Amino acid sequence: MPGTCRIIPLGGLGEVGKNMTVYEANGKIVVVDAGLAFPRDEHLGVDLVLPDMSYLRDRAKDVLAVILTHGHEDHVGALPYLLREVAVPEIWATRLTMGLIKSKLDEHGLLRVAELKEADPYAAPVDIGPFRVEFVRMAHSIPDAVAVVLETPGGRIVHTGDYKLDHTPVDGQKTDVGKLAELGNRGVDLMLGDSTNAERPGMTQSERVVGEAFRQIIPQRKGRILISSFASNIHRVQQAVDVAIQCNRKVCVIGRSMRKNVGIARNLGYMQVPDSVLIRPPELDDLRPDQQMIVCTGSQGEPLSALTRIAYHDHPAVSVERGDTVIISAKPVPGNELRVHDAINRLAKAGAEVLHQEIAPVHVSGHGCSEEMRTVIALLRPRAVMPVHGEFRMLAAQAQLAREAGVPADGIVLAENGSVVELSASGARIVDTIEAGMTFVDGLGVGDVKDVALRDRRRLSEDGVLIVVATLGGSNGASATAPPELIARGFAGSEELLAETREEASRVLDELLAQDVTEIKLLQEHLHDAIGQLVYDRMRRRPMILPVVVEV
Amino acid sequence: MPGTCRIIPLGGLGEVGKNMTVYEANGKIVVVDAGLAFPRDEHLGVDLVLPDMSYLRDRAKDVLAVILTHGHEDHVGALPYLLREVAVPEIWATRLTMGLIKSKLDEHGLLRVAELKEADPYAAPVDIGPFRVEFVRMAHSIPDAVAVVLETPGGRIVHTGDYKLDHTPVDGQKTDVGKLAELGNRGVDLMLGDSTNAERPGMTQSERVVGEAFRQIIPQRKGRILISSFASNIHRVQQAVDVAIQCNRKVCVIGRSMRKNVGIARNLGYMQVPDSVLIRPPELDDLRPDQQMIVCTGSQGEPLSALTRIAYHDHPAVSVERGDTVIISAKPVPGNELRVHDAINRLAKAGAEVLHQEIAPVHVSGHGCSEEMRTVIALLRPRAVMPVHGEFRMLAAQAQLAREAGVPADGIVLAENGSVVELSASGARIVDTIEAGMTFVDGLGVGDVKDVALRDRRRLSEDGVLIVVATLGGSNGASATAPPELIARGFAGSEELLAETREEASRVLDELLAQDVTEIKLLQEHLHDAIGQLVYDRMRRRPMILPVVVEV
Repeated sequence: MPGTCRIIPLGGLGEVGKNMTVYEANGKIVVVDAGLAFPRDEHLGVDLVLPDMSYLRDRAKDVLAVILTHGHEDHVGALPYLLREVAVPEIWATRLTMGLIKSKLDEHGLLRVAELKEADPYAAPVDIGPFRVEFVRMAHSIPDAVAVVLETPGGRIVHTGDYKLDHTPVDGQKTDVGKLAELGNRGVDLMLGDSTNAERPGMTQSERVVGEAFRQIIPQRKGRILISSFASNIHRVQQAVDVAIQCNRKVCVIGRSMRKNVGIARNLGYMQVPDSVLIRPPELDDLRPDQQMIVCTGSQGEPLSALTRIAYHDHPAVSVERGDTVIISAKPVPGNELRVHDAINRLAKAGAEVLHQEIAPVHVSGHGCSEEMRTVIALLRPRAVMPVHGEFRMLAAQAQLAREAGVPADGIVLAENGSVVELSASGARIVDTIEAGMTFVDGLGVGDVKDVALRDRRRLSEDGVLIVVATLGGSNGASATAPPELIARGFAGSEELLAETREEASRVLDELLAQDVTEIKLLQEHLHDAIGQLVYDRMRRRPMILPVVVEV
Repeated sequence: MPGTCRIIPLGGLGEVGKNMTVYEANGKIVVVDAGLAFPRDEHLGVDLVLPDMSYLRDRAKDVLAVILTHGHEDHVGALPYLLREVAVPEIWATRLTMGLIKSKLDEHGLLRVAELKEADPYAAPVDIGPFRVEFVRMAHSIPDAVAVVLETPGGRIVHTGDYKLDHTPVDGQKTDVGKLAELGNRGVDLMLGDSTNAERPGMTQSERVVGEAFRQIIPQRKGRILISSFASNIHRVQQAVDVAIQCNRKVCVIGRSMRKNVGIARNLGYMQVPDSVLIRPPELDDLRPDQQMIVCTGSQGEPLSALTRIAYHDHPAVSVERGDTVIISAKPVPGNELRVHDAINRLAKAGAEVLHQEIAPVHVSGHGCSEEMRTVIALLRPRAVMPVHGEFRMLAAQAQLAREAGVPADGIVLAENGSVVELSASGARIVDTIEAGMTFVDGLGVGDVKDVALRDRRRLSEDGVLIVVATLGGSNGASATAPPELIARGFAGSEELLAETREEASRVLDELLAQDVTEIKLLQEHLHDAIGQLVYDRMRRRPMILPVVVEV
């Protein structure tokens, strides 16, 4: 349809994670971000969660480009999976983001499948099919983040990406409020805005505040210093290194993703770390504790991460002892709290002082709070606002901010994953819905684990499994040749209960056979029901009952 | 041993929950608190976690009394399970605590098994065997909380119980700092102190602050008001009711435990609520939204609680709509964050404004922060301090506070569950260790779910189960009568993989039988290994493989 643009979020709405938005005009598509999410407790055994990309698979020929706002996993992590299924001609990203995804694509053997094009927030707009695209520098907890401006047949759209209004960022690369104001003057028809901290009053503190805390904490410490953070938080690591240099400590970077990111950031000039400051893990042995700073992964208590291994005395090169200080420079992502607390407790038990965001100013958010969102809305003065990037409560909070800023009620688009939003001269509204669920990655399988498997895993996890093996034999195949056998796993039943269950199975079987019921399915069904009932009556438990009837 | 007292924590150290401490002198025992804990994620399918009480079972004849500091589940929830196994002659508790446990014991049919004796913080000390016991009023998030002072042959012990130094509590019942000072003057040999917020700087705010927030928020609201809190937080509910009366709203109390606790508190005079203010759920229909206040359970996102059912449109009497305000007046216990967020998102989706502790001052902790602990230590001036009630990091933080207050290093006892601490004229020190793990309650079973069942449940929950059924027959029982069958649950394998697995099982079986290997155990083992390897190679998954070999 001429004069329109369709916006279809495939992920990131009503959730934190797997951000991906489709922009479609004149039958052509660009995709902004391709992120993944981490599984929740109920996604038993699942390794990663991806957006359902079937819409893009179906429209593969029309996809012109993927544009990435910044290098966080919830914005770029699904890219390899997308590229395996859809031949994307171009990928646009800023220099650091590109460095990070190059390394990722290389690991997946996908480096040469798309043309990688550098997004430059200070260059002229670029044309991608019917879209004229430009970029705006935004401050965030990873350098080189940008907003994406799309001039479309339906109107001008600003997709903020993740941002805060840090007026004193570590690299001096502030959110470009001037350009946002200029866009506001040109006229913005629709803003898709980061909603993460929309509920929180005030302003998020500057990243510099964490550096200040490091400068207060570290110089007076006599033991080892360990700092754990997200590997992508380049500025956090830079600030730690700066203090290390001040205090004559050498820095040892530990954890695969941390080493990789620091390497990429240094190569591309996003970090300044003299070679003489860095040491490799074996060299730690030659230094006194007060000459060491260890920067590592594991701020979320991830099971195989450096910090977790150190906490559980399972790291080959590093251990902590009385007098050491561990700084957990991150906030637990909801759901990770207990794992982080476990790590803190282990480290405290080893004698370390553990400073974390609940008790010391060693972390700030990468997302702006409500006053920052008000500022951005005031600068852009969008005719319509579509809150993205957040749980529903966060989207609703940004909708409220937009309302208070004077955006008319029909200009506030509270969409969900799969909503088809149409932007035209008459405004933005939801016109349709497509399927947009989750795709699970489990081991090497992408998308083969479905809800039914998860339901079974849930059931198995609660009360285990009880397998009843019955053998039918006799000349007419109609008598039980031996008493049924039971196999229990994860099911705690007493010997007596198991004996009773065996008898009950035998009784049910005999009774059915006496009535000439020999159909296997029917026998299994009766065994299932009778044993399930018996176990529930005795124990109030519901293991999965699997009757196996073998005919010989 | 004369002149000594042994202190054995059976729970509550290195964890939040299941507080229980054994005091033993001259061969006689009193137990302070008998709490439960809620299961963690890794306790798959478990309903409740109890302290391992085998020490008390073994010493049942010597147990003189259980003394309860206050009515929270992590201090009284294991009492019915203890009473089922140990004939405890006396239970001591303050009036409200007694009211709450009476109702609990009644439900378990245990009301008459022990003599219930009222603890009065303003009465003379009582003698329980070799212990002279008195009580000190402490402010907490439930009324009628006390510290326990035990004069023992080993010295004077103050067991603080949970406390904060709320100088303006809602009921005027402040922490009795005068009596604490007097105890300090008499001389305290050992303090066992609540460590929950030892890491946090400053002071916890008064409960009154939440009432202030209610008074600011509620009168200006036009829709329904829902307030969700812990059922035991009587003062929180009282403050909500007070505001309801001010605004001419009727109060409907929803949720079994909330109704029960409000009933008990009113009967015993701990709450002042005129009958005319309370309505029953069906009467809500007759009132406008701005005439309603609903006070309910579910502040932790518990699956079957009132608030969760309301959030999921599954409550018979209450639903929320645009214009309503929901106040979640509690903090998620670590591990419950995602469930609470889910409930908030659902409520926001229904159009309600949801205020919670992250964004509004609608909750304060029941536990004092570090400055309050410093104050108590300064008042008691204990010769030794044993931090209890908290994860290790919290215990370590209180140890540090004690050190800073001048308690000598050998007077700081960092114990664990099962540590045997001996107090005598020469001080307090750890002299021994006993078994003190966890006992799981699952359905009707207490203690029958062991680690091995949990390990199996974990395994099953990750990749499901794959059952291989092979039938051996032939004249000498040494040939496979049919190709093996597969049953998969929670395991996502393609049809091709399952076919390949079946073939592999068949091949392995034929090969073994050809080599005259017919021992069932051996066949099963080979099948298990071969199929496990195949599945792992193809999918990087490790379902539980259960080979069933039936001989006919």
